[in-house]
Amino acid sequence: MTISAASSPAPRAGSPSAKAERSPLDARASARELEPQERLDWLRLCRSDGVGPVTFYALLRRFGSASAALAALPRLSRPVAAPSRGEAEAELAAIDRSGGRLTCWGEPLYPAALAAVDDAPPVLTLLGHAECVLAPMVAVVGARNASANGRRLARELAAGLGEAGIVVVSGLARGIDAAAHLGALDSGTVAVVAGGIDIVYPEENRGLYDAIAERGAVLAELAPGIEPQARHFPRRNRIISGLALGVVVVEAAAKSGSLITARFALEQGREVFAVPGSPLDPRCRGANDLLRSGATLTETAADVIAQLGPLLRERPPAPELPPQPRLPLSPAPPRPARPIPIAPVGEDAALELLIEKLSPTPVAVDELVRQCQLSAASVATLLLELELAGRIERHPGNLVSLR
Amino acid sequence: MTISAASSPAPRAGSPSAKAERSPLDARASARELEPQERLDWLRLCRSDGVGPVTFYALLRRFGSASAALAALPRLSRPVAAPSRGEAEAELAAIDRSGGRLTCWGEPLYPAALAAVDDAPPVLTLLGHAECVLAPMVAVVGARNASANGRRLARELAAGLGEAGIVVVSGLARGIDAAAHLGALDSGTVAVVAGGIDIVYPEENRGLYDAIAERGAVLAELAPGIEPQARHFPRRNRIISGLALGVVVVEAAAKSGSLITARFALEQGREVFAVPGSPLDPRCRGANDLLRSGATLTETAADVIAQLGPLLRERPPAPELPPQPRLPLSPAPPRPARPIPIAPVGEDAALELLIEKLSPTPVAVDELVRQCQLSAASVATLLLELELAGRIERHPGNLVSLR
Repeated sequence: MTISAASSPAPRAGSPSAKAERSPLDARASARELEPQERLDWLRLCRSDGVGPVTFYALLRRFGSASAALAALPRLSRPVAAPSRGEAEAELAAIDRSGGRLTCWGEPLYPAALAAVDDAPPVLTLLGHAECVLAPMVAVVGARNASANGRRLARELAAGLGEAGIVVVSGLARGIDAAAHLGALDSGTVAVVAGGIDIVYPEENRGLYDAIAERGAVLAELAPGIEPQARHFPRRNRIISGLALGVVVVEAAAKSGSLITARFALEQGREVFAVPGSPLDPRCRGANDLLRSGATLTETAADVIAQLGPLLRERPPAPELPPQPRLPLSPAPPRPARPIPIAPVGEDAALELLIEKLSPTPVAVDELVRQCQLSAASVATLLLELELAGRIERHPGNLVSLR
Repeated sequence: MTISAASSPAPRAGSPSAKAERSPLDARASARELEPQERLDWLRLCRSDGVGPVTFYALLRRFGSASAALAALPRLSRPVAAPSRGEAEAELAAIDRSGGRLTCWGEPLYPAALAAVDDAPPVLTLLGHAECVLAPMVAVVGARNASANGRRLARELAAGLGEAGIVVVSGLARGIDAAAHLGALDSGTVAVVAGGIDIVYPEENRGLYDAIAERGAVLAELAPGIEPQARHFPRRNRIISGLALGVVVVEAAAKSGSLITARFALEQGREVFAVPGSPLDPRCRGANDLLRSGATLTETAADVIAQLGPLLRERPPAPELPPQPRLPLSPAPPRPARPIPIAPVGEDAALELLIEKLSPTPVAVDELVRQCQLSAASVATLLLELELAGRIERHPGNLVSLR
């Protein structure tokens, strides 16, 4: 379970890869804040119907900028509704009222480790101290119904990580999460919430939320005011693991949310750590299962630090530079007149041909290019169209299938 | 941590190796009981001063039989005292009175897995049911001051192993050992005691000892009447791991006796299993350390069975056939007139030459043969002489060093 954050995230394969010669600091120095108008466009695009992070980056690559993508959305075969400029401005105002600020992928305040993840949130709301989210982080997560011993372990682990200069990230949940935040309150802790930045959940952790906002940082992917729903939690968990060099699981039952975080960590190439527990305690089943699968056995912070040692010295590699308009984007720059070279469905032989080649079985995009005898750029454009229309699904390894 | 019981034990490298073509059952069929006189000679030789198991087998190989070795002992440069025939007969009588019987290395009742270990006891006293020691075994060992949960886990593990037809071996100690024996009392359990077969230690386990003697089996390496001393326990532990396909450690503190058993298991190529526990419980420290080192995480008997699966189906391979007189022995058969071609120390240039080449740094025997320009047989004989005189130490890989 070795970290491989250095691996180039799939959606940005087209961006320049001079990464090997750049140090993280260079990358930081080259990162820039978006212009206010650009920022508004990013917000509108990423809050558009059906535009998740992967589609967001695909649109940005395809059209060269958020504003060009926004202009294209209404002309797609199945038009996509974007929030108005006023609505986006209202969100920014709400963020402002909450005391937070918006940071976009690739901006100086956007955490570098998270930026390397395929489906990194295009925008994040940040409340509190920005330096917390720029330090190396380790996640400590676990059961809400944790035992007293489990909470004590989480608090001690978090404090030990803090002593080593590591910021502890968790999910502000009851039990292990709360104990981890508490243990790292003095040294630095980041809470990632599942709803909007201004929504405290669970209510019993309001005091902790306030303390973290004052002394650490709170992050949210969703817009202010959004109450967290069940489906939001796994998405939040991917941010927790994405921010961290490694995830420590303390007391997790089988099939628990903490195991979802651990699975994301593995997918993201992060280290997974687990604290062992008695086989007679169902709350330890999930952590023990992780150990059985090769997670690093963890009794104290020293176990985590020993394993992460080289990564802590080197810092996570900088992600590929963001697919922003200032970058030379491949394959096709936007065209001024009719920017979207997509023919309407049923009229364009190319699109029909492509759909004919697709099936519920995932197929490689390269293979589609070959079979359709179209340019790679045309196939990419047609697939983007189908993706926005909800007709295809993307899979790892640049595969697509018909829904 | 994969078992490699198939590897040929070093001290028997000279014996014929038709092993690959023999099934364990063939080997069993070819094993034979020693004649009463032979048995007595084995007992005398292995109870001689300074003759440990490794030296015992070296003597047997060198002189061709226990009786020839006994005849040679008084003529060594530093004579070795062997018990008299009468003393050996008295031991056999004591074994008989205890209700047990003696089994010698390579005899049909001698456990095949143990026989494959380098320093397997030349003789064992067996009390109870012989079929128990011929079945596949797994050791369950752990803390004497075990928690109630630890004892429950050990009992359940042992019962689960028993259901799978595995005999549970342990050391009759308080705590985990006793719980493991109890859990397997109905299915089959073997207690290896550190002293003589008739000495119950600790006294509080007398009832358990009686139950095991009646329904399972008790094994002892030492002669009846010997009270166990601290130094006997590690030697006993090597028998526990040697008998077993794998060792399960439940609740073991750092630096505890159970970890010694686990270390023997690794040296003997056995699987090591450990039950995880809370980092806050010092009794779990050793088991967690084993997990950190690669032991198989074990919550139930199913974890053990899954890992041992192939070995349980195949059974442990038969050891090399015993170096008994009936076998063609290399390199030198005993000579009738003056059977020991060893010159007295100080008179023989060869011995002086050899000592000159030796140092506290271990050196390969092959290298000594080359450097001394003596035959391999001569060097082996001279080294045996030095070994019996306590002047050299043997190391794995056929290395020797001066003490």
